[in-house]
Amino acid sequence: MSTGRRRLSTVLIANRGEIALRVARACRASGIRVVAACSSADRDSAVTRVADRTIHIGPPKARKSYLNAPALIQAALMAGADGIHPGYGFLSEDADFADACAAAGLVFVGPPAAVMRRLGDKSTARAAMAAAGLPLLPGAVEPVPTAHEAALLATEVGYPVIIKSVAGGGGRGMRVVHHPGELADAFAETTATARALFGDGRVYVERYLANARHVEVQVLCDGHGHGVHLGVRDCSVQRRRQKLIEESPAPALPDTLIDRLTGAAVRGALATGYVGAGTFEFLVDPAGRFSFMEVNCRIQVEHPVTEMVTGIDLVSEQLRVAAGEPLGYGQEDVRFTGVAVECRVNAEDPDRDFAPAAGVLTEFVPPGGPFVRVDTHAYTGYRVPAAYDSLLAKVIVWAPGRDTALARMRHALTEFRIGGPGVHTTARYLSAVLADPRFAEARHDTHLLDDFALTTTTNDGTE
Amino acid sequence: MSTGRRRLSTVLIANRGEIALRVARACRASGIRVVAACSSADRDSAVTRVADRTIHIGPPKARKSYLNAPALIQAALMAGADGIHPGYGFLSEDADFADACAAAGLVFVGPPAAVMRRLGDKSTARAAMAAAGLPLLPGAVEPVPTAHEAALLATEVGYPVIIKSVAGGGGRGMRVVHHPGELADAFAETTATARALFGDGRVYVERYLANARHVEVQVLCDGHGHGVHLGVRDCSVQRRRQKLIEESPAPALPDTLIDRLTGAAVRGALATGYVGAGTFEFLVDPAGRFSFMEVNCRIQVEHPVTEMVTGIDLVSEQLRVAAGEPLGYGQEDVRFTGVAVECRVNAEDPDRDFAPAAGVLTEFVPPGGPFVRVDTHAYTGYRVPAAYDSLLAKVIVWAPGRDTALARMRHALTEFRIGGPGVHTTARYLSAVLADPRFAEARHDTHLLDDFALTTTTNDGTE
Repeated sequence: MSTGRRRLSTVLIANRGEIALRVARACRASGIRVVAACSSADRDSAVTRVADRTIHIGPPKARKSYLNAPALIQAALMAGADGIHPGYGFLSEDADFADACAAAGLVFVGPPAAVMRRLGDKSTARAAMAAAGLPLLPGAVEPVPTAHEAALLATEVGYPVIIKSVAGGGGRGMRVVHHPGELADAFAETTATARALFGDGRVYVERYLANARHVEVQVLCDGHGHGVHLGVRDCSVQRRRQKLIEESPAPALPDTLIDRLTGAAVRGALATGYVGAGTFEFLVDPAGRFSFMEVNCRIQVEHPVTEMVTGIDLVSEQLRVAAGEPLGYGQEDVRFTGVAVECRVNAEDPDRDFAPAAGVLTEFVPPGGPFVRVDTHAYTGYRVPAAYDSLLAKVIVWAPGRDTALARMRHALTEFRIGGPGVHTTARYLSAVLADPRFAEARHDTHLLDDFALTTTTNDGTE
Repeated sequence: MSTGRRRLSTVLIANRGEIALRVARACRASGIRVVAACSSADRDSAVTRVADRTIHIGPPKARKSYLNAPALIQAALMAGADGIHPGYGFLSEDADFADACAAAGLVFVGPPAAVMRRLGDKSTARAAMAAAGLPLLPGAVEPVPTAHEAALLATEVGYPVIIKSVAGGGGRGMRVVHHPGELADAFAETTATARALFGDGRVYVERYLANARHVEVQVLCDGHGHGVHLGVRDCSVQRRRQKLIEESPAPALPDTLIDRLTGAAVRGALATGYVGAGTFEFLVDPAGRFSFMEVNCRIQVEHPVTEMVTGIDLVSEQLRVAAGEPLGYGQEDVRFTGVAVECRVNAEDPDRDFAPAAGVLTEFVPPGGPFVRVDTHAYTGYRVPAAYDSLLAKVIVWAPGRDTALARMRHALTEFRIGGPGVHTTARYLSAVLADPRFAEARHDTHLLDDFALTTTTNDGTE
């Protein structure tokens, strides 16, 4: 990505679901024509209704459509697009795709490919952040080639440890090891999983924090060396490492800690030449010590909570800086007001171990009213395809304080009416989590739902 | 209303449509049980789905249901309610109803009956505001009993004049007179209309401003002598004196003028012992002179724009102060951020002179995403009843600045999908108004749509 300005007049959205609609809205707000790229399973998605043009790029299987880089680039060129927005997931952190876009003369809305490559590899990312002075958990910066070396390292940093895929991310390809006897098996399994999922079997080892919170910093950088943070998000409410509830700011953290987290993230971003919207993920232990985990080189599912507390349209900002525009404001211009919370409503059946529960929505009435926002591609009559992840809608609320925000969310979730043959959602499950006193009082950590599952929903015996 | 505290545990909502749902949401947010009172035409309205209890109070005709004070009070008592929220319209400004509530031991969520009586009568309201130092348009404070006296007064203040009903409000029961020869007929007609509409034929005369803007101040007062303003709203975009688009703050007004308007409103409110949420309406002429018009002793349709720029839930505040709680904050605690705009989407056919166009909504997909709010009682499958006013949904957007807000509104309106046999809406008409350069540049006055109708829609030859 050069630092020269290049106006975007037409952008192809290489994604689906709610984020495709979200990106389309930002394009329209920015005066950019929208080309929706959809698989044959997504012809009815709401994004096709707001797009200036919809191009069918392949069958439902992601490899043949949303992961099909040549087809997406060809569609973009055919439609006269000058840029591609990858959303999240799919090709959003694929440096080769970013390079291919550039080779085709298209602006990739994301960081420069070289930055993505460096930060996408956990080893080089950890090394870069260590060099920028960010604290890491004790463990390896380099990949660990053998189970024997992993065992030596684990003894050095102390159990429990976590074995993670170098190429992984988003909670996939990792395993916690509590005892030396489990290490060899865990190493073999993680390596195999990483190879299968990411085509890269390299893993590394670090100390595992049992009672940590997941706190992340949103950064936004232009191509002219300027960057700001847009505050922190707490995403500790996770089920099998998938975030379910996110909020901004992170509750019950001292301001000084938040300042150190945001300062570290901006320092890390500027040190690596980051451009665009990015997320620096940290673990925060009960003593308030924090450790860098990873950088997500894309817009996040949970970005709306940041938008609601800052008033900044993050996707429009991505488009602006991708076009080479300077941020035009500094850290002191970013104001934080109130508390925002997001719940991910998934088409899953909590009573059947969260099995996907897709189908036709015969009823779909989202909540509304003051300080309630819903991001969804669904509507009454929409058929939720079984081919993709189960995210159906994001409900976001804002309030001056956290208690009011949580109450508002509880009411919004109970207002949400979703029904259809075979369709189930996580809305009621989320309401139960919101009512949990550990969450309500911000005493939770990333293991909240481990216990929660044991006591209030089906216990599947794993994890 | 006493100044003692009285916790509200259950509130009956004596209204329908979107405002009934809005009040229900505020009650839920405040931990108050909701009793929906509905006519037989409204059994399917969304409020019945969030209410703890729904009571059928009569047939569709408003006189037998939403204006049937004894039935509403009986329903409230039967349901164990301790308060009644009247919404807007219907009995919301009926001091006798407020008295009847008090006699039945129910908290009426609104100002004290005596205050409503004084401010509901335009003559006594004008006198009170003149006494509080608010500027009035030249004309009568007292009712004008005969056409002859009206003619003398009109000559004195200068034509054009406007003849208004003392008991009127909301744009009904008034007529502009441009020439002395029209006065006698206009006087007779206005008197007769006022008698028919309000059961009170008294009228008064004031100078008519041809190029004024409608600017109103939201005030909020507790029962302990404290009051704040929540900024101004511009509601100049009117069709036949019905507001269609509202925004906060009022664009293109100097801050000093806004300070004088808000100061005058708070002074007027405190001078009259106002309690609750209220609106002081003013006309502002091109030279920046303002004149008091009237006070609306209730929540307004357009209250959401104030909520979006202040972060304050106005209906929850109404409930708090009605329960005797002190405001608990001062003017300096109220912060104003950005610009909010509301469009009223009515079930009317702009191509048939805005005739009501009710029916079953086979498609109803409201817009969503960042900084978009929709207040509506409708949903896919809902039958819009023909018996009531045609307001189907309010679309509200927020943005850091007005241009972005207007763009966001244009996109939100085009996203809104509403369809069904015989159903038409004003959405496309509103989009055209938003695109009008006079509105976009804030050069408009209350007559914007007079011209607009002449040039871009059917001209029906009247007003």
